[in-house]
Amino acid sequence: MFRRLASREEALERIRRYVRMKPLRVEDVELTRAHGRVLAVDVKAPIDVPQFPRATMDGYAVRSQDTFGASEENPLELTVTGRVDVGEKPSVVVGPGEAVEVATGSAIPDGADAVVPVEWTRGGAGGSILVLRGVASGENVMEVGRDIRRGDVVLRRGTRLTPTALGVLSALGMPKIKVYAKPRVAILSTGRELVEPGGPLADGRIYDVNWITLYASVEECGGEPIFLGVAGDDPKEISGMLRKGLGVADLVLVSGGTSVGATDLMRNVVDGLGEPGVIVDGVRMKPGKPTIIGVVGSKPIFCLPGNPTSALVSFHNFAAPVIRAMAALPETRRLRIKARMATRLIPASGRLNTIPVRLETRGDGVYACPILRGSGAITSLALADGYVEIPEDVKLVEEGEEVQVHLFHEWGAGVD
Amino acid sequence: MFRRLASREEALERIRRYVRMKPLRVEDVELTRAHGRVLAVDVKAPIDVPQFPRATMDGYAVRSQDTFGASEENPLELTVTGRVDVGEKPSVVVGPGEAVEVATGSAIPDGADAVVPVEWTRGGAGGSILVLRGVASGENVMEVGRDIRRGDVVLRRGTRLTPTALGVLSALGMPKIKVYAKPRVAILSTGRELVEPGGPLADGRIYDVNWITLYASVEECGGEPIFLGVAGDDPKEISGMLRKGLGVADLVLVSGGTSVGATDLMRNVVDGLGEPGVIVDGVRMKPGKPTIIGVVGSKPIFCLPGNPTSALVSFHNFAAPVIRAMAALPETRRLRIKARMATRLIPASGRLNTIPVRLETRGDGVYACPILRGSGAITSLALADGYVEIPEDVKLVEEGEEVQVHLFHEWGAGVD
Repeated sequence: MFRRLASREEALERIRRYVRMKPLRVEDVELTRAHGRVLAVDVKAPIDVPQFPRATMDGYAVRSQDTFGASEENPLELTVTGRVDVGEKPSVVVGPGEAVEVATGSAIPDGADAVVPVEWTRGGAGGSILVLRGVASGENVMEVGRDIRRGDVVLRRGTRLTPTALGVLSALGMPKIKVYAKPRVAILSTGRELVEPGGPLADGRIYDVNWITLYASVEECGGEPIFLGVAGDDPKEISGMLRKGLGVADLVLVSGGTSVGATDLMRNVVDGLGEPGVIVDGVRMKPGKPTIIGVVGSKPIFCLPGNPTSALVSFHNFAAPVIRAMAALPETRRLRIKARMATRLIPASGRLNTIPVRLETRGDGVYACPILRGSGAITSLALADGYVEIPEDVKLVEEGEEVQVHLFHEWGAGVD
Repeated sequence: MFRRLASREEALERIRRYVRMKPLRVEDVELTRAHGRVLAVDVKAPIDVPQFPRATMDGYAVRSQDTFGASEENPLELTVTGRVDVGEKPSVVVGPGEAVEVATGSAIPDGADAVVPVEWTRGGAGGSILVLRGVASGENVMEVGRDIRRGDVVLRRGTRLTPTALGVLSALGMPKIKVYAKPRVAILSTGRELVEPGGPLADGRIYDVNWITLYASVEECGGEPIFLGVAGDDPKEISGMLRKGLGVADLVLVSGGTSVGATDLMRNVVDGLGEPGVIVDGVRMKPGKPTIIGVVGSKPIFCLPGNPTSALVSFHNFAAPVIRAMAALPETRRLRIKARMATRLIPASGRLNTIPVRLETRGDGVYACPILRGSGAITSLALADGYVEIPEDVKLVEEGEEVQVHLFHEWGAGVD
């Protein structure tokens, strides 16, 4: 249905039109499994924190009016009638002229409305104390709900759960929490020459690379990868595995088959899986040109180039924003760092050029060194820290010019 | 053995003296489980990549000398004797005057030493082609080992495995890889008032917070957390649980018990577990002063304050560098961002002040807003994005002054 090469923006526009870029499911997880996950609900406090009036100093729980006017010169005597340890339910009541010993964190016994810090008292005679300064009602007491009030929204839907957010959930007594489920992403490699690592390598064949670079990249985008395996170049086999992928996953990634014939094959296979079919058939960018994007029902299929670096560039441009959105993470977040271009570049005209680069720290800063594509697919991949984008209308990038490097990973050279 | 309050640097110095800050074990993991892990070995390529001479263009495999002198005006005719598909072992040999059809990625058949691209040929008559330009030996052929040579070190010990590094391992046919094991970190909460979330909350008691903030923070440092449970304040019970922690883990975290009596208790318990015992007994910083650090054999025990924000500050200063080093991650890496102090601050003198702050983006930049400690322990924790350090000798921080914020988590406000 779209036979003309799309610009990147047109391709993204079509993706947004056909794909529901929102989280799909909610699940309950234990707090110990919730780190980094995204809240699927507004969290309302089910209890007051604290649930009881609490001493904020070591000292004596008293009726404040019993201490009015106390001073060094005119100490007032109170009878100590008991003690409340931290964690203990008070078993005494504070009556007129009485005091109960408390520690920081102790529950304040009924009758008392303030705490006299221990340093404002002197031991009196026979189970009594002398109060040297008066306290106002509420002084050194944290009242019920002062920290968090029952019913208040303490964390908002969409919050990514940090160690501290998890601490708040625990403080509210919640052992589990509702988070968005990770989108499931099926991964298929195609190509008769591909062998899974660990298998024997006959002449003419090579080990598959894209399965694992895509697998780990899906994890970085908050997705749950499912590797379907390696298919040859038989349309029926590929079609069958794609149907399986659509059955188990929310999104499918296919890599390989970027030659002219293979592109025709993938286009036909994707169109044969259901409506609306192919929505992007080639993109005006380099690398990434033979990217095909299809949709079946509302599930997207991304057919990426076979060259590992090209596959990653295409993944980051088109699949990553969808996976991140389905994972409820910000769509566009990728680590980007500033660097200087190490060499002068004259980009190919009429398309978006993305130049794989290696980062190199020199005396005067971080440099982006373009990786020559002739030097071998695997070596290029091993060296690439990310890529620099050069828009269609830029004719020249000077040596030393500042550029933004889009990183292929969440950590690495120059990021620490 | 060290009864005087240590400065932070003295405390870190003692930790380095008594604790082996290195990874402890190595394990074999599948590539699908290796993302983010740290290589425990130098990886030498077990095979050449490619393992066979490989066509880098679609065209015809030929003997280069047969094409010398070919031009548009003087095309040379070759007989096409077969085809090698991608992934196929060649079954033909190229003799003088012969050509074999190949695609990008095909194995070059014996006898041939170059590929004439298809666009430099015209179809001849009856199974022959006309070559319009000559090729040199090796042209459009990637020779054996050109991408990676067998025996070369392709990834160094200590490399953190990114999606691209995993791709390189897969290209070499390695289904598993040796990485450093995650250090095991046991976590114990102490305090009679503490209840694990999900349990009933009697009067005077509160839900434990530190267990989960520490659990998730250990994960961020590359460790494997093991929660031991909540202990009361009985020295025998705490001692028993610490022994259990030392048995199952490489490092133990205890939180709670920062009152004067509880500090005495923890000091004695830790000293009773074995030599060398307590190596740091209080630190000249706020918060974090009552931090106790002990070592039994070579395993460290960090006794952190009970207040959740204080516990995290102490964790990040003392335990995090040890866990990261044991995980083979760079010791000091924490996300830090620049912000402006939102209010004027006069820090307490004679100690390192760490001020918990919330980040706020305003029109002219990101501001660090100090969190008032009076406002409740849980609310403070929920608001805190991290902390600002103010060294002992700084008397004043002006409103608007630039400060560095040490983040409590790996993502968050202002970091995207």
